[in-house]
Amino acid sequence: MSLITVGTMAFDAIETPFGKVDKIVGGSATYVAYAASNFVKPINQISIIGYDFPAEELEEMKKRGVNIDGVEIVSDKKSFFWSGKYHMDMNSRDTLITDLNVLEDFNPIVPDSYQDSEFLMLGNLMPKLQLSVIQQMKVRPKLIVMDTMNFWMDIALEDLKVVLKEVDVLLVNDAEARQLSGEVSLVKAANKILEMGPRFLVIKKGEHGALLFHESHVFFAPALPLEEVIDPTGAGDTFAGGFIGHLAKTKDISFKNMKTAIIVGSALASFCVEKFGPERMKEITKSDIDQRIAQFVDLVSFDIDLV
Amino acid sequence: MSLITVGTMAFDAIETPFGKVDKIVGGSATYVAYAASNFVKPINQISIIGYDFPAEELEEMKKRGVNIDGVEIVSDKKSFFWSGKYHMDMNSRDTLITDLNVLEDFNPIVPDSYQDSEFLMLGNLMPKLQLSVIQQMKVRPKLIVMDTMNFWMDIALEDLKVVLKEVDVLLVNDAEARQLSGEVSLVKAANKILEMGPRFLVIKKGEHGALLFHESHVFFAPALPLEEVIDPTGAGDTFAGGFIGHLAKTKDISFKNMKTAIIVGSALASFCVEKFGPERMKEITKSDIDQRIAQFVDLVSFDIDLV
Repeated sequence: MSLITVGTMAFDAIETPFGKVDKIVGGSATYVAYAASNFVKPINQISIIGYDFPAEELEEMKKRGVNIDGVEIVSDKKSFFWSGKYHMDMNSRDTLITDLNVLEDFNPIVPDSYQDSEFLMLGNLMPKLQLSVIQQMKVRPKLIVMDTMNFWMDIALEDLKVVLKEVDVLLVNDAEARQLSGEVSLVKAANKILEMGPRFLVIKKGEHGALLFHESHVFFAPALPLEEVIDPTGAGDTFAGGFIGHLAKTKDISFKNMKTAIIVGSALASFCVEKFGPERMKEITKSDIDQRIAQFVDLVSFDIDLV
Repeated sequence: MSLITVGTMAFDAIETPFGKVDKIVGGSATYVAYAASNFVKPINQISIIGYDFPAEELEEMKKRGVNIDGVEIVSDKKSFFWSGKYHMDMNSRDTLITDLNVLEDFNPIVPDSYQDSEFLMLGNLMPKLQLSVIQQMKVRPKLIVMDTMNFWMDIALEDLKVVLKEVDVLLVNDAEARQLSGEVSLVKAANKILEMGPRFLVIKKGEHGALLFHESHVFFAPALPLEEVIDPTGAGDTFAGGFIGHLAKTKDISFKNMKTAIIVGSALASFCVEKFGPERMKEITKSDIDQRIAQFVDLVSFDIDLV
């Protein structure tokens, strides 16, 4: 089975209460690829980079089974650059700089060699571009997962609603779910969003875990309580990569298996925040992942006897 | 087995985005008693009320097995009165009025008939009064659970630290855990607090669930995602009542059973918020509780195969 991931590959400058990096590789598709490559090969990447994106990073990705045929390299422009600063609680951040650079011209093209992919992960991007990727697929993928953000709800809501009708799973955070639905209660928000198109909705709550809604079912996965969070950047994309990676590996898109996929995604995300950028994602092994998943099992297991 | 609960019995005026009540019965010991009475009898109540506290409320409690021998009735003073207004997100509130009234003279006395109680729930109160109750017990109870709040950390921290050395379980919310420990990370906060005395620490995170820490173990229980929260007042006390009620019923104070107790407490709290004051707590049956607990089991159950 194979997986297409669409999104940004970029540079970030990040400041958190625990440190600072001036230039580190980032981007939604980078994090998704590193996370998903633990479960499935090839990862068919669609993105755009400038002349300055490090060749060794591309090599590292290729070694992990990431196919970069769909990554456009623009020889006279810089890569997308984002700079942000996290507040003390790490739950909120200020964007300091957004230099679109190559992203201004991004027009994702699905290479012929990607056409047989059964899983499609649409990273956070302009909704029109997400739709264009879906429309280029000659056979509809078995599962389309999409991420988005409040920015598109502000400036491209109608386009966003069109894409929503075409996807199976939507990933948003709690504030975004509230904004998209106009409901304060997450349960009511979920019910409204499930009527907009997606059959499954994942609401990410950062350090407070994630909720999965499907029909009248709801599943909750906690985030692992961590001693130290060094840098939350990319945690949501890493979650998405682990989530769709597990689904693509198992080829099972039942609600039951989606619950497992959420735990896998949460486990992967818990590594991501331990170092700046995607560094930690390059170090972890299958045994590290299994151990962390076992911690999740411990974290929520209880016995109850209804007598 | 029997349970002593110490705390306030009061009147509240509450305003939430969904309504308003000018005068409704409240108080920590009221909520604890209603919740715990589903599991254990008698509930040996220690509190203080004024001439205005409704006789029918006392009768209702007695019917449920609440012993009010330890409830002092002051014939020329009013009951404690609290008034507050919740913000739109229901996670924060402003206190509008605090009329201590009878609470100014509260000097809790443990009646002789309560002396054989094996479980002691110290509701949120001045630390010196909590300590006095512990010191009056001729035989140390099998389990002492204490609630407290940021207010006592501000004005009576040294007294609070003395009580902490004498209790088995501390219940606080996340902000209080951070304040008490001086640590932002809840894991680090928990480690520090566990060194201050209690062997078990429950950190309540409201709609984001609760964490139980013990030695190097951690357990997470979600809050049930609810369509509507009408009034969060008393949810924390109801949680405490369900928690200690289950422990007192089963007489098992292992970490394993504490996990179950947290689920039971969370289930009870999820009813409390459905109506203003303790109204909903008077309606629910054992079958309602069992059904809700089953929802918690569904909410967090997943299968994972580490291969």
